[in-house]
Amino acid sequence: MVCMDTGPTLPEMFDRYKGIVEQELSRCVPAPESSEDVGPYLPVRYHLGWVERDGSPAKSPLSQGKALRPTLCLFACEALEEDPISALPAAVALELIHNFSLLHDDIQDMDAERRHQATVWSIWGVPKALVAGNALHSIGDTALLGTVRNKVAPETVLRVSQILTDSYLEMIQGQCLDLFFETSTSIDGDDYLRMIALKTGALIRSGVQIGTLLATKNQDTYAAFTRFGECLGRAFQIRDDYLGIWGDEAITGKAVGNDIRRRKKSFPIVYAFGEAKGRYREDLISIYSQDELNDQDVERVLDVLEEVSAREQSQLLTDASAEDALVALKPVSLPEWARKEAEDLVDFLSRRQY
Amino acid sequence: MVCMDTGPTLPEMFDRYKGIVEQELSRCVPAPESSEDVGPYLPVRYHLGWVERDGSPAKSPLSQGKALRPTLCLFACEALEEDPISALPAAVALELIHNFSLLHDDIQDMDAERRHQATVWSIWGVPKALVAGNALHSIGDTALLGTVRNKVAPETVLRVSQILTDSYLEMIQGQCLDLFFETSTSIDGDDYLRMIALKTGALIRSGVQIGTLLATKNQDTYAAFTRFGECLGRAFQIRDDYLGIWGDEAITGKAVGNDIRRRKKSFPIVYAFGEAKGRYREDLISIYSQDELNDQDVERVLDVLEEVSAREQSQLLTDASAEDALVALKPVSLPEWARKEAEDLVDFLSRRQY
Repeated sequence: MVCMDTGPTLPEMFDRYKGIVEQELSRCVPAPESSEDVGPYLPVRYHLGWVERDGSPAKSPLSQGKALRPTLCLFACEALEEDPISALPAAVALELIHNFSLLHDDIQDMDAERRHQATVWSIWGVPKALVAGNALHSIGDTALLGTVRNKVAPETVLRVSQILTDSYLEMIQGQCLDLFFETSTSIDGDDYLRMIALKTGALIRSGVQIGTLLATKNQDTYAAFTRFGECLGRAFQIRDDYLGIWGDEAITGKAVGNDIRRRKKSFPIVYAFGEAKGRYREDLISIYSQDELNDQDVERVLDVLEEVSAREQSQLLTDASAEDALVALKPVSLPEWARKEAEDLVDFLSRRQY
Repeated sequence: MVCMDTGPTLPEMFDRYKGIVEQELSRCVPAPESSEDVGPYLPVRYHLGWVERDGSPAKSPLSQGKALRPTLCLFACEALEEDPISALPAAVALELIHNFSLLHDDIQDMDAERRHQATVWSIWGVPKALVAGNALHSIGDTALLGTVRNKVAPETVLRVSQILTDSYLEMIQGQCLDLFFETSTSIDGDDYLRMIALKTGALIRSGVQIGTLLATKNQDTYAAFTRFGECLGRAFQIRDDYLGIWGDEAITGKAVGNDIRRRKKSFPIVYAFGEAKGRYREDLISIYSQDELNDQDVERVLDVLEEVSAREQSQLLTDASAEDALVALKPVSLPEWARKEAEDLVDFLSRRQY
């Protein structure tokens, strides 16, 4: 028997919202009209992990995501003692926009696999993948407009729509910075944190903001939850970077050092570029100037990361961001169960193995 | 002296709305923060024809479009005796969404030129072009939300947003059909008309619908203008197909037979596939099964088109659609100037040379 440290289990709130999120998602995403339908909905449903490429039901549940963004949105709403159903259309819109960005990311990075399955562009080609991604975006817009069904005032729906659009434009700024960083040799930790606050953080934060806005008009509460969302986003991404290098292959589905081989400038690497000295530094620069990295290169980079304690530093930063998230919520009056769940959530995001 | 038939001049309404459309567009599209800004706004402004690739003011006004969609939207609104300013944010959103789709089209088709200038992906690469296009989409969403500034009820803004999103999803269906047609050998005229009604027609129609909705609650008027928009879209696209083959190079900037060389299955070609007999048919099939077409192939296809009178048939279909557009407006009570302008518009769209 092999024992794996799978880390903390998914907090209960994910289970609590899973059913309604899946139901609303499946209501919002049209099905292909027939097996001859050449439209975008088969690739869209495949990308969401619902069907195989031929349209038959998906065999592996691994191809579905955790639905982090909708969960955060619904949790913020319920923690502030509003029925989370009010926030369901917006929650689902967040998941669709997130998936749209992943689908386009795969085209940009020419990644052949995501979540243990072939990517949309690698099956249907770039042109079809491009429009399937755009369809996901617009299905998300339509889902959001459904907020009005849940007795939310039209003015509020417009405000929610603006928050989501603004955060998506921030995400694009982050994507552009990330592209620029690929060829830049002088990024420091602050540049990197600014980039992830935009690329990953903005959409995570906006989920929390929308859930809050639909529950309360209190500006202080909104500001506190905004800060909570920002810190969660940072903790989430730095942990993601950690797992991209030191994650357990059997759990993440990615080989150790995967992000090194892809020459991805994630936090541990940026940190090492700033801290490594002498021969370590020279090797790092020389390896990252190559077009392809072999096993030996990956090993050497792992040595450099070890030398500068990049692993510990990454986890320290994750833990500090997680702590900041909880501090941000302190002034807000919350029911006991909600505060406990916020703690479980933060603990999960910063120690998760997948 | 060389005399060119430049066809009917651009109707006066284009001039009347040009200033406010340009002003609102420039208000909505952010400028890069500095010359070091690596974000999406430089490629976006370049694509809109405002600046050169280095950010300096554009030298050639040819790189800007006609702004057909905003013009139709504002015209519908004003023809129904509402201040067109109400429709300005939506009009500008239409132009942005249209330009977003062009930017992504250039990636899909790997086209190196558009409107006499290098395309965004050919300068900045596919990943940057992809996100710049997505930025244009979201700037469009933000522009639309500005409708609420013009004293339009939030419920109506949500309705407008739904019309725009729905038409964009139709456009995607059309793009998918178009991709499918590229490799299909049995498309007939009806298939083709269904495809362009989605790919080009839906957004043109939605511009007219939105302008109408912002001016009146009358359902019959809305239905009449919807039909007007549908017919205009078809007339516009078939004339576009005509110009893609028989357009004057000096005016369109494209060589005669350009769409033939690209093996684009536009209306005249689909028509010829349906009508050509014997040797003409065999040659057509054989030429379209090649990967590349030489000058002689293009000449031969032009002969086949001549043989089946594809040129005349295309223009007949454009004229019939133009006529249908005007018939659709007959039951609507319109001021004299508006009816006259609708006629000028239809005449321009069906006989334009560019």
